[in-house]
Amino acid sequence: MYLTKSFIPILKNIPSEAKIKSHQLMLRAGMIKQSSAGIYSWLPLGFKVMKKIEQIVREEQNRIGVQEILMPTIQSSEIWKESGRYEDYGEEMLRIKDRQNREMLYGPTNEELVTDIFRASVKSYKSLPQLLYHIQWKFRDEIRPRFGIMRCREFYMKDAYSFDISDEEAFFSYNKFFLSYLRTFKRLDLTAIPMAADTGPIGGNLSHEFIILADTGESKIFTDKRIFDLNSDGTKVEKKSLDELRNKYEKFYAVTDEKFNKEEFEKKVTEENRLITKGIEVGHIFYFGDKYSKPMGASVDLPGGKKDFVKMGSYGVGVSRLVGAIIEAKYDEKNEIMKWPISIAPYDVSIIPMINKKDQSALEKANNINKEFLLNNIEAIIDDTDENFSSKMKKMNLIGSPFQIIIGKQIDGDLIEFKETGKEIKKLKLEEVIKIIKKQKVQN
Amino acid sequence: MYLTKSFIPILKNIPSEAKIKSHQLMLRAGMIKQSSAGIYSWLPLGFKVMKKIEQIVREEQNRIGVQEILMPTIQSSEIWKESGRYEDYGEEMLRIKDRQNREMLYGPTNEELVTDIFRASVKSYKSLPQLLYHIQWKFRDEIRPRFGIMRCREFYMKDAYSFDISDEEAFFSYNKFFLSYLRTFKRLDLTAIPMAADTGPIGGNLSHEFIILADTGESKIFTDKRIFDLNSDGTKVEKKSLDELRNKYEKFYAVTDEKFNKEEFEKKVTEENRLITKGIEVGHIFYFGDKYSKPMGASVDLPGGKKDFVKMGSYGVGVSRLVGAIIEAKYDEKNEIMKWPISIAPYDVSIIPMINKKDQSALEKANNINKEFLLNNIEAIIDDTDENFSSKMKKMNLIGSPFQIIIGKQIDGDLIEFKETGKEIKKLKLEEVIKIIKKQKVQN
Repeated sequence: MYLTKSFIPILKNIPSEAKIKSHQLMLRAGMIKQSSAGIYSWLPLGFKVMKKIEQIVREEQNRIGVQEILMPTIQSSEIWKESGRYEDYGEEMLRIKDRQNREMLYGPTNEELVTDIFRASVKSYKSLPQLLYHIQWKFRDEIRPRFGIMRCREFYMKDAYSFDISDEEAFFSYNKFFLSYLRTFKRLDLTAIPMAADTGPIGGNLSHEFIILADTGESKIFTDKRIFDLNSDGTKVEKKSLDELRNKYEKFYAVTDEKFNKEEFEKKVTEENRLITKGIEVGHIFYFGDKYSKPMGASVDLPGGKKDFVKMGSYGVGVSRLVGAIIEAKYDEKNEIMKWPISIAPYDVSIIPMINKKDQSALEKANNINKEFLLNNIEAIIDDTDENFSSKMKKMNLIGSPFQIIIGKQIDGDLIEFKETGKEIKKLKLEEVIKIIKKQKVQN
Repeated sequence: MYLTKSFIPILKNIPSEAKIKSHQLMLRAGMIKQSSAGIYSWLPLGFKVMKKIEQIVREEQNRIGVQEILMPTIQSSEIWKESGRYEDYGEEMLRIKDRQNREMLYGPTNEELVTDIFRASVKSYKSLPQLLYHIQWKFRDEIRPRFGIMRCREFYMKDAYSFDISDEEAFFSYNKFFLSYLRTFKRLDLTAIPMAADTGPIGGNLSHEFIILADTGESKIFTDKRIFDLNSDGTKVEKKSLDELRNKYEKFYAVTDEKFNKEEFEKKVTEENRLITKGIEVGHIFYFGDKYSKPMGASVDLPGGKKDFVKMGSYGVGVSRLVGAIIEAKYDEKNEIMKWPISIAPYDVSIIPMINKKDQSALEKANNINKEFLLNNIEAIIDDTDENFSSKMKKMNLIGSPFQIIIGKQIDGDLIEFKETGKEIKKLKLEEVIKIIKKQKVQN
């Protein structure tokens, strides 16, 4: 892709309305454009990143056996009246009247709708467990939208729901998502820590927030540092292995401020291991038993002939929010250098040829390199403008391909000036460059 | 995938509310579930088909160089007041007030929003043409939603927009979409005919509807039969080649009823070539010049120093509607047999083993076949219930995999009972079966 053909409207200066670095970068690199308060359009660069994140989230849902569906954005108020949340939800719910004057709403979450789908079709314990997810736009009418797509009104989210016959089976489902989320965030090159959390408006009695560290985060967290050394390697999707995984994490104190207890923190964590900092919530899992299935009458036949309400959990990942969260974690604001993890980078590599009207040889060389890249499934963006070197580097550092190639006027045999974004230039042969990029792509 | 693990709630009988065959099949095969009037959830089977259609639409947009963005569903009324359509649009527009009492709406189409994005970034003719598309949920508050997802309220659509410096360049963009649509529908195994059409509420002076024949269609069409023999093979994305393509089609009379003129029809089409029938609109392309760019002030600098408003077109494909349209074209309602084109089939093949509690050998054989399929990227659904043969066949004929394998109690050496759905059984070796399925997949 040539930069001049792409729709990437880069801004030279930091827009004054952008207070945190993800908002700044997304506006400057032309990833998003605000259309009204807290509502954004995703331009090609931002869209590409979000789609790649969505695909990783999807693959990790499928991997634990969750089935994908798609619920609509507009819901009837009736099911919310059944669950009792229609009045409770407050003003964050965008309430709508259609032309027939029926009360509708733009779904802020989908517990009611998915319970309605479940109760219409599933009648027997034999069909359990059922794990369903969808990835859809949601709306919460924030009183004061801010921080770009981090606290906006229309946002893109994966939400999953589990239906089980007993608490024990439901915990098994819960733990599958616990594993799935650790895997998902790892593939996004994030260290997300599961923290005991309040259940809030979803309700229920067991809940973890997955939080990444960031100074700009809105969640205050209190944790034992050693939790950052844990990972899910080797965990199997089996009850025992999943229990062990959760126990391994829960051994360490890690809570958000709603659950914080000073005495407990100081008792459980020695001083050198205490970490009090801020973080960004990127995922949230809940177990709430029959909170929705009971008022909505979602029951199944049990083996003995009796009926019981199904036990449910819900599991969310903020797909659009992750774009911002990853920028908060990865963007070097001082030097204005972004380097996307290759798994979600909009382009694998930026090619920066130095061009002037008289001499197009560097552009030709860029085109030849790109031909080899295409044969190797490496996606490049070529800066085909005739701007000066420093201006080109500035733009490409905002676009954030993990690798950069510079083609100057003097070409040194078959060696190419190649760098990992933000690091030193190396002179390498094209085949070595391809090998390095492909190796990184395979690992991620 | 095992049928018992899947969320495919199959209905034995035709629901009385379903008047056309796509609506009937989609409810019976558990592809969708209505959540409120004209609003549907997509269950796994329907979702898989829609996603595959979406991907083909996307690939064919990318192929002619359109860039993907994503605009939000909720729009501010302000830009619609600028274009003058806020009052005109009528009650089909879902109007919303947010908690701050601002006038918002759920986008029924996106000319205003994309013009706003364009004018904020593009200032010079040098950046033209710009071709942008998105695939997003839209809402039209139909007074009487009916026919399932064919005339519903919340629907999924690809809409693209072109921005050019002159009429001539704009026609070039228009013709690219003309070609792209012929290619898209061909990959969906549909014969869609471009027909001169009225421009309706979008406005403008040049427009084609792409229509497939179906008795249940809502568009009345008048056409020269010979247009069905045409195709876009060999057309290049170049001005001359695209002009020739459009001329080739426009030589034949083909209009919807708004444009119908009896005298002209009878003059231009000899009696034996006249076809008066019904069809379903699956795509619509418009050219409308500066209808939006002028009131909204979307102008660019011209080479000589002057400014002019950009010339725009818009190009829609009903992604969710296509699921229904393809069923209308392919479903054998009398015998209750659906056969999806393999390019968008939810599964490539259904495996139907005859199982009873004492004898699981057919299921084992099914599992072994499936292992080979997985190695060959063939996706199968296995009916692992212990129902009888006729009941299993009925379900699988509704699910509509293009191929079926039957594993009876007597197994005939290494020969497998294999059939194209709706056709005769053949006895073949597994390697031959794999070859046949793979060959069809490659062709599509």
